[in-house]
Amino acid sequence: MSQPVPPTVIGVVASPYTETERTPIQSSLNRSEEAVLRLAPEYADGLDGLAGFDYAWLITWLHRPRDQAPGPTALRQVPYLLRAQGRRIGIFATRGPRRVSPIGLSLIRVLAVAGDTVRFAGVDLLDGTPVLDIKPYVTRFDRPPGEPRCGWFDEITIEDGSTPSGLAPPGASQPGPS
Amino acid sequence: MSQPVPPTVIGVVASPYTETERTPIQSSLNRSEEAVLRLAPEYADGLDGLAGFDYAWLITWLHRPRDQAPGPTALRQVPYLLRAQGRRIGIFATRGPRRVSPIGLSLIRVLAVAGDTVRFAGVDLLDGTPVLDIKPYVTRFDRPPGEPRCGWFDEITIEDGSTPSGLAPPGASQPGPS
Repeated sequence: MSQPVPPTVIGVVASPYTETERTPIQSSLNRSEEAVLRLAPEYADGLDGLAGFDYAWLITWLHRPRDQAPGPTALRQVPYLLRAQGRRIGIFATRGPRRVSPIGLSLIRVLAVAGDTVRFAGVDLLDGTPVLDIKPYVTRFDRPPGEPRCGWFDEITIEDGSTPSGLAPPGASQPGPS
Repeated sequence: MSQPVPPTVIGVVASPYTETERTPIQSSLNRSEEAVLRLAPEYADGLDGLAGFDYAWLITWLHRPRDQAPGPTALRQVPYLLRAQGRRIGIFATRGPRRVSPIGLSLIRVLAVAGDTVRFAGVDLLDGTPVLDIKPYVTRFDRPPGEPRCGWFDEITIEDGSTPSGLAPPGASQPGPS
């Protein structure tokens, strides 16, 4: 089996967020806020055609959560959305940022593509997050039929604008990402 | 900016496909075929809770397309689905496998989770493809509202079961991935 090499950073997100605890946990919970992805100029030609899509996936390198918590990744973690319950879930059944391979998946709404810059809406990324790839959202490929079961997410209420600190149980002084 | 390190391979897909040209181009175009993801045993605990989800994303390392075409990645390529027209598109507006960071995104239907093994339906991966991450499909996060514009995909007919070789224009002897 060929082993992965470091992925190439094609660009960086400029966002207003500098702390994980105060960053919206998903772009879909913060659909209206805008931010900018700036590509390295040598990759700008790869954006040709992207403006025809309403949505795209950003594949990102989640650099900060790993920096904050060295050592092996816990395989069961308390998701931000379950902080009040303190319930642990296998990380491959969560969308949290502390992962074995710290790769993020953000669904953004493409607002404008100009030169090496993509202006988008739907921000769940820290300022400076490295972007590894952009893939257009294709309904035929990315929307499963019907109303799929979504595990533990089906049991909870998910509020727009949720952030980790906003989801901490009352009285928690230092709600670590566990 | 912290530079990415090689992502960790958490497991490997066992599929019947050994040639890119004969592999379905998207899992959604091959929804009923089944395959198996086998995790490295040390990551099996991370699957706890995944069985409650109907769908999941596999983040994969597209090892083979890169092996076949050394050198810098072309920033405009003819997507498999546009081979008949020979039309080039910026790679960040395509879903093809030859990417700057060779990272794949496959939407699978979770059939069974047992120990370190995930049996799934929807196969668009070569046998032996390294898997870097699994994320559960969450409708609230992953389904944009309405009927999004999907760029050049909106202009074409997309057939179930499409493979690169099946999409080659008539008479093409060696339909390279451009």
